[in-house]
Amino acid sequence: MSMSRRSMLTAPTVLAGSALLAGPALAQGAPQAGAAPPQAPGFYRFKLGDYTVTVINDGIARRDNPAQGFVRNATPEQVQAALRAEFLPTTHFDNTYNFTVLQTGRETILFDTGTGGLLAPTAGAMWANMQAAGIDPAQVDRIIFTHFHGDHVSGLVSRDGQARFPKAELLVPEGEWAFWRSERAAEAPRNMVANRFAPYENRVRQIKSDADLGAGIVGIPTHGHSPGHTSYGIQSGNATVMVLGDVTNHPVFNLANPGWHIIFDMDAQAAEATRRRLFDRAATDGTPIIGYHWGFPAVGRVRKQGDGYAVVPINWSMGV
Amino acid sequence: MSMSRRSMLTAPTVLAGSALLAGPALAQGAPQAGAAPPQAPGFYRFKLGDYTVTVINDGIARRDNPAQGFVRNATPEQVQAALRAEFLPTTHFDNTYNFTVLQTGRETILFDTGTGGLLAPTAGAMWANMQAAGIDPAQVDRIIFTHFHGDHVSGLVSRDGQARFPKAELLVPEGEWAFWRSERAAEAPRNMVANRFAPYENRVRQIKSDADLGAGIVGIPTHGHSPGHTSYGIQSGNATVMVLGDVTNHPVFNLANPGWHIIFDMDAQAAEATRRRLFDRAATDGTPIIGYHWGFPAVGRVRKQGDGYAVVPINWSMGV
Repeated sequence: MSMSRRSMLTAPTVLAGSALLAGPALAQGAPQAGAAPPQAPGFYRFKLGDYTVTVINDGIARRDNPAQGFVRNATPEQVQAALRAEFLPTTHFDNTYNFTVLQTGRETILFDTGTGGLLAPTAGAMWANMQAAGIDPAQVDRIIFTHFHGDHVSGLVSRDGQARFPKAELLVPEGEWAFWRSERAAEAPRNMVANRFAPYENRVRQIKSDADLGAGIVGIPTHGHSPGHTSYGIQSGNATVMVLGDVTNHPVFNLANPGWHIIFDMDAQAAEATRRRLFDRAATDGTPIIGYHWGFPAVGRVRKQGDGYAVVPINWSMGV
Repeated sequence: MSMSRRSMLTAPTVLAGSALLAGPALAQGAPQAGAAPPQAPGFYRFKLGDYTVTVINDGIARRDNPAQGFVRNATPEQVQAALRAEFLPTTHFDNTYNFTVLQTGRETILFDTGTGGLLAPTAGAMWANMQAAGIDPAQVDRIIFTHFHGDHVSGLVSRDGQARFPKAELLVPEGEWAFWRSERAAEAPRNMVANRFAPYENRVRQIKSDADLGAGIVGIPTHGHSPGHTSYGIQSGNATVMVLGDVTNHPVFNLANPGWHIIFDMDAQAAEATRRRLFDRAATDGTPIIGYHWGFPAVGRVRKQGDGYAVVPINWSMGV
């Protein structure tokens, strides 16, 4: 074949989705103007016992030069090698956002809210993707939070500070609530959090990180990434799934290397201990996991591989 | 948390998409009747240089007891262990179909055609998925074939034998054409192939497996799975992708274990030699590959792992 070795080697960066960074380019892939979306809507749905779970993709944010400064305790060469082993570019990293919607038949429950379009021009696809999936923000009954970092809570409000989920009750881990309202939190993120929760003031309920929330939902304490970080298990019949939150970022970093401390882990030692404990169990149990920063559809299981873990993605099913 | 170890262990089978086998169940996931599709349409689009590539999912066919008889030269225990290592059920295997559409700006080109809905009640989603992606069968200019097994050629015709692609020219590997029209082929598949190609009689062009087809498309001889099996490289600018066909089935079988001979490999020794040669190179080059029977979106790269290879899926991008 006529393809040169050089052209093969340059190919990986071409598929990295750079067109997403240029707004108008989103439409370029459509074969006929107005006839079809350039990309399939970013939701993925599966049955969980009697429940329906939908993963909603909210787009990405790009970070330049991920080998510099993103992992505190690995050298740039180590990070570059890890990226290359996954055929990822070393010049930039596209961090993906995916949150979870649970429909029990009685309630519609969100786990986290995405960026809401407030954080990066390349994120905020959640509104279109929720609409495509038939999920109306006005019908959301509860929103359960893993933690309060901006990419998890910003979907709560519009740019002018109005509540996006007019009837939702918010369930927040008490350790997270306490921290982000205290002066232990730096001023800018503290103000961000206050802004996001402001229009919900009378609808916030604090929960313990190991709480049984009913409807088969239980908290799993996973502190470290943030002071009150909490994952959740959902069970219906014999079926279970774990909503992970940010126990790991993209698997290439601190799932493949659970000892790596990324800059977003607020207590790096606790975050590492949490990771190792949680994934040791998940690798044995085969629990399906939804990873907030895993590649969409972001559902997979974890197995031991080398000194760390790897994600085994589920087989996409057209059925639900 | 209250989930028992037993319930965690039973979870993997719950996500295996069994609802797809029951037609009416396809609608159960919709939160409001008629308001949203139960699942996102199964197409995935990406830019390849100046071109647009769309992977179309056609659904699945289920095979019971994949550990018995599907791999000729591995024991049931070995196959079960491989399935379990990927958290796949051992009771059944859902074989996925994905074909490729290339839009160059001048031409719309298909690589293979899917099942057309003629082979299994759980396959045939291709028509809805093509429509969702804005790809009109009437506008397809060329169809290039990897080989003539039923799941690759049946989309050519409707159940009553009419051409589904009214203006398409068909490009067929000459070794494949010769074999399936000769008495070396068993009668039933020979008749199936004759039926699929019948309405295109004057629009079939035989090509050599290493032909340069123009528009950056080149044949890659990959005989073994079938006598004339051919993969294709597509290049635009510096970007490349390989349309693999059936050099492997699902990665859990003969990509992880390139020495395994599945029952569909017509010349098992040649198929194995082809696999090892092709993936040795792809693991070095990092060439993006579209695998016909890989989990949707079926785009990834291959790396060496253990005694075989593993697929590294691309990161799904909402951008195109």
